[in-house]
Amino acid sequence: SLAKLSLNRCSEVSDWITLNVGGRYFTTSRSTLQSKEPLSMLARMFADDNNMYLMNPSATDSRGAYLIDRSPEYFEPILNYLRHGEVIIDKYVNPRGVLEEAVFYGIDSMIPHIQKIIEDSKSYDSNHALT
Amino acid sequence: SLAKLSLNRCSEVSDWITLNVGGRYFTTSRSTLQSKEPLSMLARMFADDNNMYLMNPSATDSRGAYLIDRSPEYFEPILNYLRHGEVIIDKYVNPRGVLEEAVFYGIDSMIPHIQKIIEDSKSYDSNHALT
Amino acid sequence: SLAKLSLNRCSEVSDWITLNVGGRYFTTSRSTLQSKEPLSMLARMFADDNNMYLMNPSATDSRGAYLIDRSPEYFEPILNYLRHGEVIIDKYVNPRGVLEEAVFYGIDSMIPHIQKIIEDSKSYDSNHALT
Amino acid sequence: SLAKLSLNRCSEVSDWITLNVGGRYFTTSRSTLQSKEPLSMLARMFADDNNMYLMNPSATDSRGAYLIDRSPEYFEPILNYLRHGEVIIDKYVNPRGVLEEAVFYGIDSMIPHIQKIIEDSKSYDSNHALT
Amino acid sequence: SLAKLSLNRCSEVSDWITLNVGGRYFTTSRSTLQSKEPLSMLARMFADDNNMYLMNPSATDSRGAYLIDRSPEYFEPILNYLRHGEVIIDKYVNPRGVLEEAVFYGIDSMIPHIQKIIEDSKSYDSNHALT
Repeated sequence: SLAKLSLNRCSEVSDWITLNVGGRYFTTSRSTLQSKEPLSMLARMFADDNNMYLMNPSATDSRGAYLIDRSPEYFEPILNYLRHGEVIIDKYVNPRGVLEEAVFYGIDSMIPHIQKIIEDSKSYDSNHALT
Repeated sequence: SLAKLSLNRCSEVSDWITLNVGGRYFTTSRSTLQSKEPLSMLARMFADDNNMYLMNPSATDSRGAYLIDRSPEYFEPILNYLRHGEVIIDKYVNPRGVLEEAVFYGIDSMIPHIQKIIEDSKSYDSNHALT
Repeated sequence: SLAKLSLNRCSEVSDWITLNVGGRYFTTSRSTLQSKEPLSMLARMFADDNNMYLMNPSATDSRGAYLIDRSPEYFEPILNYLRHGEVIIDKYVNPRGVLEEAVFYGIDSMIPHIQKIIEDSKSYDSNHALT
Repeated sequence: SLAKLSLNRCSEVSDWITLNVGGRYFTTSRSTLQSKEPLSMLARMFADDNNMYLMNPSATDSRGAYLIDRSPEYFEPILNYLRHGEVIIDKYVNPRGVLEEAVFYGIDSMIPHIQKIIEDSKSYDSNHALT
Repeated sequence: SLAKLSLNRCSEVSDWITLNVGGRYFTTSRSTLQSKEPLSMLARMFADDNNMYLMNPSATDSRGAYLIDRSPEYFEPILNYLRHGEVIIDKYVNPRGVLEEAVFYGIDSMIPHIQKIIEDSKSYDSNHALT
């Protein structure tokens, strides 16, 4: 039933995590950070056996959020990708910024999709610039 | 009278709810979440008989907001739709992101409208790219 | 003198009000909400004789802001209109969203201006789509 | 030396001020608000001899920020102009909104620049609409 | 290994710093502010031997963030550049605003890249305006 469904989804989310990415807060779950690309740097940072990072108090701010010294804006499409598996970038967002972050966090399966978006926007722009 | 009208609207809103969607806060009412699509997952999560979710302290953050591990940006048009029944998406927002969330929350009546917006923006873009 | 002028403007603003519109905070004054359209629902909600709304603690959040279950984004041009009487909408903002809110709050004098903006953007888009 | 330079810039900034413009916070210095247009209403509001405004507790919020009942979005380019003297408006921002605020705050030297931006965007749009 | 890699990156970030740039908060590390352009004003402000700035309580706000009286929006691409060395500006952001900040903070290696972006957007716009 639907009530069960919502419940199951919630119980999956056993472990809420707040990230402070360059000054903006993102709330997500450990399972979102780990399921899609378990070997990525991002997944490894929040793996259960990574005591070095998770136990290190200098890596959290005063609200308990994990500090990451990167762009918050370009991190958003990456977190959404980890949530549902689609690469979705708004029109005003520079896809090169998202690529830079995907490489940094090691979300390898996302990279060819972003590269295609960059290629497409180039050909669209040049079509326009040449008319 | 107008004073009555405002009053009635307010008394309808008996039950304020704050959602923490991926780190951003949304304030709304239980009736907004439930009236439009009572059988959707979103409505079921906040139904009176869903003790499992509403009574579960792990599902709220330190400010008492209900935690949802999804994109905040693409949730906005969905919440507005539940408020007034119109599908309104800003120009810079990728409608595919909104579609993804409508499917997740189970707001079925919204889906064909979003699909039409996606189709329209494609034909608009290709008209431009081909000139 | 200029010092007097600023003073007068400030003394007019006798009564500051904070609104929590769908989760975002707006600070304004009672006179802004009431002078332009005294009979609108928004003005009536904050009228001195509306004890039902203003005295109702369930209508304020923990910071004392008045709760309104509507879109924050599309409320901005409406509040600006009440401040200075001009209808100004940014390019990326969907004017249909602003229209929806103007109707809800009962800011009737704003409606034909927004409808004209919607018409103009349609003819602009179709000129582009047809080239 | 460079260390000296940064120091000098900092010592100039003797007096930090936080403004609550319509609900958003802006941090700046008294000297920024006053140097560029000393006779503007904005400069006068924060002049040392304006005891009426600066000593008036009803003009500050609970965080000590000075309350101004105006649009935050269109105030941004004005504050930047006072910081460095250039009129810079993003593409999606409606320049008419910035003009409205420049007139309100009395930043007269900025007005012809904004008017030119409005004219330029009109002729650009009509060139596009007519193709 | 990957676990090592994430660890190394974290231990590099020994010193977290929060900046209050014009009212918005940015979290970064001292090494990000210093490695790329060690002689820039920004790097000098946070150098270990700059006791004048770092020891000066008037330069921090109540949350301990370092106060900088400049635009937050145009600072973002600059901070990202210091993080990974790429100049990435979103479509809606006016590159002239970023140039102004690069000059102010003394990030000299970034300036020719921004100037090229300004030139490119001019020729793109004029191509469009002339069709």
